[in-house]
Amino acid sequence: VPIAGNVAIVGSASTSFGILHRYGYLDLVREAANGAIEDAGLHNEDIDAAWLSTALPDVVGMEGDSGTPITESIGFSPRPVTRVSAYCASGMEAVRNGAMAIAAGEYNVVLVVGAEKMRDVTPRGSLVARTGNLTHPTVGKGRSGPGFFALLASRYLDTYDRTTDDLSAVAVKNHEHATRNPIAQYSEPVTSEQVRSSPMIADPLRLLDCTPTTDGAAAIVLTSTEWARRRGVRHAVLDGVGFSVVDGYYSGLYNPKNDFLGFRATRAAAEMAYAQAGIETPREDLDLVECHDCFTITEIVNYEDLGLCARGEGWKLLREGATTTGGDIPVNLSGGLQSCGHPIGATGVRVVKEVADQVTGRAGARQVQGARRGVAHTLGGPGVLSSVMVITGSNGH
Amino acid sequence: VPIAGNVAIVGSASTSFGILHRYGYLDLVREAANGAIEDAGLHNEDIDAAWLSTALPDVVGMEGDSGTPITESIGFSPRPVTRVSAYCASGMEAVRNGAMAIAAGEYNVVLVVGAEKMRDVTPRGSLVARTGNLTHPTVGKGRSGPGFFALLASRYLDTYDRTTDDLSAVAVKNHEHATRNPIAQYSEPVTSEQVRSSPMIADPLRLLDCTPTTDGAAAIVLTSTEWARRRGVRHAVLDGVGFSVVDGYYSGLYNPKNDFLGFRATRAAAEMAYAQAGIETPREDLDLVECHDCFTITEIVNYEDLGLCARGEGWKLLREGATTTGGDIPVNLSGGLQSCGHPIGATGVRVVKEVADQVTGRAGARQVQGARRGVAHTLGGPGVLSSVMVITGSNGH
Repeated sequence: VPIAGNVAIVGSASTSFGILHRYGYLDLVREAANGAIEDAGLHNEDIDAAWLSTALPDVVGMEGDSGTPITESIGFSPRPVTRVSAYCASGMEAVRNGAMAIAAGEYNVVLVVGAEKMRDVTPRGSLVARTGNLTHPTVGKGRSGPGFFALLASRYLDTYDRTTDDLSAVAVKNHEHATRNPIAQYSEPVTSEQVRSSPMIADPLRLLDCTPTTDGAAAIVLTSTEWARRRGVRHAVLDGVGFSVVDGYYSGLYNPKNDFLGFRATRAAAEMAYAQAGIETPREDLDLVECHDCFTITEIVNYEDLGLCARGEGWKLLREGATTTGGDIPVNLSGGLQSCGHPIGATGVRVVKEVADQVTGRAGARQVQGARRGVAHTLGGPGVLSSVMVITGSNGH
Repeated sequence: VPIAGNVAIVGSASTSFGILHRYGYLDLVREAANGAIEDAGLHNEDIDAAWLSTALPDVVGMEGDSGTPITESIGFSPRPVTRVSAYCASGMEAVRNGAMAIAAGEYNVVLVVGAEKMRDVTPRGSLVARTGNLTHPTVGKGRSGPGFFALLASRYLDTYDRTTDDLSAVAVKNHEHATRNPIAQYSEPVTSEQVRSSPMIADPLRLLDCTPTTDGAAAIVLTSTEWARRRGVRHAVLDGVGFSVVDGYYSGLYNPKNDFLGFRATRAAAEMAYAQAGIETPREDLDLVECHDCFTITEIVNYEDLGLCARGEGWKLLREGATTTGGDIPVNLSGGLQSCGHPIGATGVRVVKEVADQVTGRAGARQVQGARRGVAHTLGGPGVLSSVMVITGSNGH
């Protein structure tokens, strides 16, 4: 059977996200993996196979370049572990591939772990510095993440006659949300004034427009919906799964097909996921969204690409408070990448976990009352890869 | 439905393997991908999704670190492309994950491409040199591939009272086989004397005991068995799929659980695959095997780990000529990694292609008359990852 409607999330866990020098990569994988298995009420030996997402393993000795870190950290030998990578969309790719195994009936219970160690510095430099040195076709020429997204921000502000106050509104909202998220890297609120006076990184993006660099891991356990129903356990169902890779990797944002005002990959992935889930009017049909706010501008264009509003009107949702806690379509109640940080391979798994927690009423102080259905979204690889999943809660029947 | 019995290979292609400085990574991906699609009698737009295997992308600017190279090279936007990696077993992991998507019914037609560019040298060095520099827990300390496998060879020769002539027999056999393989990197025969007088790399392994480093790509097209039957096309069925990751990555061969005489991962993967395919006596039930002869000693222990003979008796199969063309269980009729070379991400896909070609009567001058069923095998990550697939031919009904 296809994934949509037939695969359930029955357990999840996350480490703290932050600067975790006292924990190695394997420690993070172990804590998240064992936490998710325990949360599902299962034991290590109940898991048939695993998927691991790590985007850029080489800073910590190639850990994460294959599935061995799950094998080593929790004692998983001799079972299969697959490693996938898709830049910032890696985590949701691991979820998607694990979900296909469940949908096929190849395995009954699957573990998905995302992990990244970004703050370690080896004699060869930090992960971020070394990435710029990897002869990447654009990053290697100094066209960094902030540089890419600054072009988007400039174009957006100019086209729609907006100001940086519209960008700051994202940072202020998400940092306020993070005050209720115990795993966030930064859980203090920030003011618009603080964003405005933070150091300029790539005009018009300032430090507080950018996600920090982070260590962390997150994990979920997948089964068939039937398995979850049979056991009568509360679970979240993957009701729509879209993943899109569009051209433009080498040209980055400079691709003539790009209008610098949004991302074709997100629109394509959302179209796939919404069609499967029967979502026609996302803003009405969804109770919450977790999306890829790697920069403040990204969240605004995500609103548009995910169909929460018309193009050019993303900034209005912030003005109306629609995407703030208590609004009609709250976005990034976790605090988003802005506050949680962005351990690349872990992010997609964390985002799926957050939506699953919400739609099963397990989001603690962040809970949207009565939330039944949400969307998880990530964006990667100069905007050319995007994953969108529609996740619906079930009380176990 | 599970993979076994339900997923078919309906097309395949490979580039030449060799030192291909005139071709970029994208050229190799394009040639293999388009070749496989054409071989299947399909068009680009018939493909629903793709999987890409590349083990160590960073020598060529992170190409292969996500699925974008398929998107860019053949024009695949906006469809999904997943990238997987599992060291030398990467290619068969891509096949396995693509097969799960077919088994789930998530997609009808899937493309799997494996590619690696190992001979390019950037200002930061060659892929091989840089891997040793990646702070890998063992490779970074100078315990290289040849060094690892030399320990296995020494232990094997000592335990079973064999000599390096037993190792040379593998090189002689596989290079003779390669004279009938137009894509092989080295297609000239070698003599036992040439192996014996080639430079020592890691005692007792000499240059001609080792696979060369190579550029190349291979691709296959997967559908459901039902899809292939409905169209009445000749196809090969995945009848058993095993993948195992065992502990010992950090300790490498120094793990106390290892006896230095074979690989637990291969035995576990074979057990999974054989159980699914109903193989009880591999030597009788199989018509041919393609296995991971990264070093000559590896092929000998593979015979044992794959159950073609008792442990300690792999060398006898060579003496008897059982694994030579015309023998009762020919192994590495392609010339194996010894002669084809080993572009890491491509190898597993090439190996699956070779077995599929044999069991569908398409192996040209290498054809085993009446071959119906074979095994594809790869080994990776200091011997801790292994993939085994049983592949059976069908005349279309």
